[in-house]
Amino acid sequence: MSQTPKTNKASVLSPERTFSYEERAIPTLQSERDVIVRVVATGLCGSDVHYWQHGRIGRYEVTSPLILGHESSGIVVSHGSKAHVRTGDRVAIEPGIACNVCPPCRSGRYNLCKEMRFAATPPYDGTLCAYYRVPTECCYRLPSHVSLRDGALVEPLGVAVHGCRLAGDLQGKGVIVFGAGPVGLLCAAVARAFGAGSVVVVDIVQARVDVAGRYGATGTYLMEAGQSAEENAGALAEMHGFEDGADVVLDATGAAPCLNCGIHVLARGGTFVQVGLGRPSVEVPVGQICDKEAVFKGSFRYGPGDFELAVQLLDSRRVCVDGLVTHEFGFEGVEEAFKHVAGRGGIKSVIFGPEVDVQDAKKSH
Amino acid sequence: MSQTPKTNKASVLSPERTFSYEERAIPTLQSERDVIVRVVATGLCGSDVHYWQHGRIGRYEVTSPLILGHESSGIVVSHGSKAHVRTGDRVAIEPGIACNVCPPCRSGRYNLCKEMRFAATPPYDGTLCAYYRVPTECCYRLPSHVSLRDGALVEPLGVAVHGCRLAGDLQGKGVIVFGAGPVGLLCAAVARAFGAGSVVVVDIVQARVDVAGRYGATGTYLMEAGQSAEENAGALAEMHGFEDGADVVLDATGAAPCLNCGIHVLARGGTFVQVGLGRPSVEVPVGQICDKEAVFKGSFRYGPGDFELAVQLLDSRRVCVDGLVTHEFGFEGVEEAFKHVAGRGGIKSVIFGPEVDVQDAKKSH
Amino acid sequence: MSQTPKTNKASVLSPERTFSYEERAIPTLQSERDVIVRVVATGLCGSDVHYWQHGRIGRYEVTSPLILGHESSGIVVSHGSKAHVRTGDRVAIEPGIACNVCPPCRSGRYNLCKEMRFAATPPYDGTLCAYYRVPTECCYRLPSHVSLRDGALVEPLGVAVHGCRLAGDLQGKGVIVFGAGPVGLLCAAVARAFGAGSVVVVDIVQARVDVAGRYGATGTYLMEAGQSAEENAGALAEMHGFEDGADVVLDATGAAPCLNCGIHVLARGGTFVQVGLGRPSVEVPVGQICDKEAVFKGSFRYGPGDFELAVQLLDSRRVCVDGLVTHEFGFEGVEEAFKHVAGRGGIKSVIFGPEVDVQDAKKSH
Amino acid sequence: MSQTPKTNKASVLSPERTFSYEERAIPTLQSERDVIVRVVATGLCGSDVHYWQHGRIGRYEVTSPLILGHESSGIVVSHGSKAHVRTGDRVAIEPGIACNVCPPCRSGRYNLCKEMRFAATPPYDGTLCAYYRVPTECCYRLPSHVSLRDGALVEPLGVAVHGCRLAGDLQGKGVIVFGAGPVGLLCAAVARAFGAGSVVVVDIVQARVDVAGRYGATGTYLMEAGQSAEENAGALAEMHGFEDGADVVLDATGAAPCLNCGIHVLARGGTFVQVGLGRPSVEVPVGQICDKEAVFKGSFRYGPGDFELAVQLLDSRRVCVDGLVTHEFGFEGVEEAFKHVAGRGGIKSVIFGPEVDVQDAKKSH
Repeated sequence: MSQTPKTNKASVLSPERTFSYEERAIPTLQSERDVIVRVVATGLCGSDVHYWQHGRIGRYEVTSPLILGHESSGIVVSHGSKAHVRTGDRVAIEPGIACNVCPPCRSGRYNLCKEMRFAATPPYDGTLCAYYRVPTECCYRLPSHVSLRDGALVEPLGVAVHGCRLAGDLQGKGVIVFGAGPVGLLCAAVARAFGAGSVVVVDIVQARVDVAGRYGATGTYLMEAGQSAEENAGALAEMHGFEDGADVVLDATGAAPCLNCGIHVLARGGTFVQVGLGRPSVEVPVGQICDKEAVFKGSFRYGPGDFELAVQLLDSRRVCVDGLVTHEFGFEGVEEAFKHVAGRGGIKSVIFGPEVDVQDAKKSH
Repeated sequence: MSQTPKTNKASVLSPERTFSYEERAIPTLQSERDVIVRVVATGLCGSDVHYWQHGRIGRYEVTSPLILGHESSGIVVSHGSKAHVRTGDRVAIEPGIACNVCPPCRSGRYNLCKEMRFAATPPYDGTLCAYYRVPTECCYRLPSHVSLRDGALVEPLGVAVHGCRLAGDLQGKGVIVFGAGPVGLLCAAVARAFGAGSVVVVDIVQARVDVAGRYGATGTYLMEAGQSAEENAGALAEMHGFEDGADVVLDATGAAPCLNCGIHVLARGGTFVQVGLGRPSVEVPVGQICDKEAVFKGSFRYGPGDFELAVQLLDSRRVCVDGLVTHEFGFEGVEEAFKHVAGRGGIKSVIFGPEVDVQDAKKSH
Repeated sequence: MSQTPKTNKASVLSPERTFSYEERAIPTLQSERDVIVRVVATGLCGSDVHYWQHGRIGRYEVTSPLILGHESSGIVVSHGSKAHVRTGDRVAIEPGIACNVCPPCRSGRYNLCKEMRFAATPPYDGTLCAYYRVPTECCYRLPSHVSLRDGALVEPLGVAVHGCRLAGDLQGKGVIVFGAGPVGLLCAAVARAFGAGSVVVVDIVQARVDVAGRYGATGTYLMEAGQSAEENAGALAEMHGFEDGADVVLDATGAAPCLNCGIHVLARGGTFVQVGLGRPSVEVPVGQICDKEAVFKGSFRYGPGDFELAVQLLDSRRVCVDGLVTHEFGFEGVEEAFKHVAGRGGIKSVIFGPEVDVQDAKKSH
Repeated sequence: MSQTPKTNKASVLSPERTFSYEERAIPTLQSERDVIVRVVATGLCGSDVHYWQHGRIGRYEVTSPLILGHESSGIVVSHGSKAHVRTGDRVAIEPGIACNVCPPCRSGRYNLCKEMRFAATPPYDGTLCAYYRVPTECCYRLPSHVSLRDGALVEPLGVAVHGCRLAGDLQGKGVIVFGAGPVGLLCAAVARAFGAGSVVVVDIVQARVDVAGRYGATGTYLMEAGQSAEENAGALAEMHGFEDGADVVLDATGAAPCLNCGIHVLARGGTFVQVGLGRPSVEVPVGQICDKEAVFKGSFRYGPGDFELAVQLLDSRRVCVDGLVTHEFGFEGVEEAFKHVAGRGGIKSVIFGPEVDVQDAKKSH
């Protein structure tokens, strides 16, 4: 990591959905609290791929050139006088800059800030570039044993922490996680670290559930496409001893069959957390929610303390992310990386920043 | 009320869904905690009518003769040594007898008790009879200014209290209630008593919303059938100044258009409470729940303290139920009453118990 | 209020604890979010008097000239482009400027901010001057029916709101408030507005408890100095029917006898809130707290939403402050006002700002 | 364990505070929910010793012969038809029988039940006998790898679980535990299992803190008797990096110096839990509680789910109690055991029940 780029090379998505490389101005400190980070690794997320494939997510549309990427780690290269990090610090980046002064921000729910500037959400550029500016509160020092490459996983780990916190006290609880992608596996790992008595990971692909045991799962269930939600719920409950249902369900898929199976398998008084975006509208067994007096919660990004706790879970090795990054791409391979992720290859793909020393980025310190 | 019936006349629904009158044994005290109540007034509920019309609700089926009715008030005629009420006390009856020893009961959620014996839910008989036995914890003394006729409203008021409590702190909040039937109106009244800053009642029938102002509503909205959920949500928000949406939505209808409109009109971080049963399965804008990090809660009957608080709201006149009972039927008119309610006449219909002195039942004391 | 002062006259306390008047620079807008308020009325608080009498409160010491006063209302005279108030708006001022970016601020507890700049707490000047600058989030528009004079009560009302919120759900609860000064009376009024079933106000001065009925009290108790905490607790409970003790105690005195009586009269599972500062160290019946599994909470100033709710309680007339301002002083009478308050005269004394039209300040609009 | 006693030998404390052995009637099943347990091991608690030494604790006085002991494990020898355990089951006993029907019981706080019949609290006999009857909800099956001897530790572990739950979310938090006796060490172990980032155990005896590392402590502090609470708090915070204080303090001593040091070392917004009884009245830095807006909670015994979670923590080996039982006594050595505990010897002493096969009681299964 000895050399630092002289320019701020960026990967830019056009409104026509083609990628190109551009030189952008190197960001400068604009306040005493600003930090400039050299981006070392960026994980690709389903939303990045969605913008590339569809040009929009809901009301957010790519109408002018946009830099994608928001799961990043890097090295501090400069900072204002009121920053809490120092030049050379290895950090994970929280990619949302809240206004900090509106009522939701002042009430401890900055993820609901209407002025939020979130990386790679139009019109705000993301992190697929050499240098990125954030306020100091968005920088989290990585534990020395976590590589910068794996530091890109702090963002999805923050998503999992937020979802698991919304689920309430998990000590000794029975938990089911739908989806064995990066967020689902990290939800399983966090739920287990939070004391869940059992954590069953559900997916429709055998190869995906096969790795779940490494990330906190105490059991797995391969959902059968030909069966109803009730049938899958019944089989799942029987296989894993959820006699009265699961206390908590975390759905990291957003898919209607998972949501339905999850509500059917929920215990009376249980909590269902929809982690991450699903489809806009889904047929839901509302009668079950009423009969069980269940709680269904949306989980949106992350809020106060989530990144701190994500880093601490890594630091204390209560959560281990080894093996989650299955594919690596150089900065010249951005389009290739997107194609790979679109094809649902592996678990998590990362793109290294411009001129990054890959061997160094994979080392712990 | 000077005379008391010599027999326990009951209105019985057959599995073939016909009503007849039968003489049942007068219940006797079976424990020191038992109370025998002479039933004075019983309100009719949608679930009673549903059993009459369809013979079942979900998994509960009328397979043998069943006494309906569960919204009742009455007079204590005898009690065991450990009861907290006395002969002659005017009481509202909580119609569910929990086991009190299972984990949900011991955890303060007896409404989720699997051993619950709930009146008028097969195979447990309801209160459309002369005498009814309950444990002492199911008896709540009526305030002197509340008539026994109106005491039948304590049960639906308990439903409203439970739903409003699930909604969390309502002080100064913006609240929307869907449905201007008895439960919806009582939800509005309770939300207002709980300090809501504004309470808008929504229905599709003008005559129903017209009375809402008497029960806590600060505004009303007549939902338009020809418009989408988003359109109705937009118009509702604009008319009543919910610039950022409503903090809390209470749905007392279970109807898909209300549920959808309600979620669209919810503010970021808002809470939606489904009060009472809706349809088993409904298309829900789950994407909205996620984006807003909203909470969707089922509300099932009532739990610890709900009836106490319902009675206290009446006692302190913070909730007024005058005018909610729009129709009265003698015990000989059970079938007529069911037909009337099935035709959606009025707000709440009550059936007086056998040999009840109606003038006395309508007086305060 | 037609004229506005040409200078920023201020009342300044010297480290030697003498008052003088000085001309300070008129504050100017320093950010788009700033607001300049012409101060119209300032209530005097025990802490103001304590600085005058003792030169310090705990670790906060008056080591250089300090402007006192922090309970103020006024009129907006200028504002930045991102302010939510407009010139001419009548506002209550929240007198603490939080950093908004530290972990407590970002977690919704800005009252715990270590960088808080709180008016009249060394080294930060207070509001006993003609013009005061605050960020827009510290301005709250007054309801039209509340005079600017009474608007000075929004600050202590915010203290009461914060304390009552910490007490948790008050619906139907039995509440005891110790202290019939401005904060105690406002706690009673807020507790009642929050649905408390009974609110008993306790003081050692008959004349003080006599007015409590106007501010939400359902009963009063004159504490007897010659009796033990247990005896007073017993007599208080018996007089007001707290058979199992009070659910909630709010102590607005900080006096050891009140704290002890309050914990003794608390019900099992009850909550005690220490509103405002008491003595640094007090003998406490800890054994009672354990036996009852009670919760003892400190309440410090106010936090997110407290001022909004205070204003709304006034707006909806759920809390009425008529009669709380018992004494008024012109700006030339600052020292006289301090002497008056030090002598414990009346309930609340306010000092009008320089050149204020007093008749106008006392009108509603 | 092949033989079972023919009689119900009991160790009885007289009002004159002398022990004797008596034959009591063997208890019989009195309801379908009853269970008769042969007592195998009973841990001695400070309260047992206190009754022996002083004849009373607070308002509870030994006025007639009393069997002490309430931390017990045993084997089911018979049970009613509605019990969930079976003959031969190895169980831990929850020694309090709640009424299950009063408002606190129905609200999920049965530890506050006024009708609670708690073992070894006058007038209710304890478990230092051969056979003991409890309702089925008081029996918890032991994990096979936990010996019956160590099963006597489930009760104090339940106390620790209850206290840690009252402390709220501990994930990543900084925790300080005062007292390195059985309850303090178990609090440390539970706090660590609940995800605390650091757990510092404080005592005044070096030998006691020395073992804390085996039970979850990440650090220890030897409190210095000659120093003030502030000095100890400062030194403790500096040594263990609590820059802004500890998020949570659990006090298992009840001693005034610990309570004071604990409140001084608490962070702003922190929570202090008084686990178990302390002295009736203690000088407390109330000003600190207010300034920090801290919460001080009493913790009383245990409630819903605490024993279940205690057993599960053992079962999953997230809490390990190996080495906590330092001394064992046969049933003939009751007085010797009390003298030993009174002399503060070791960590936990257990007394085996009459005719127990000690080797068997120490085995896992």
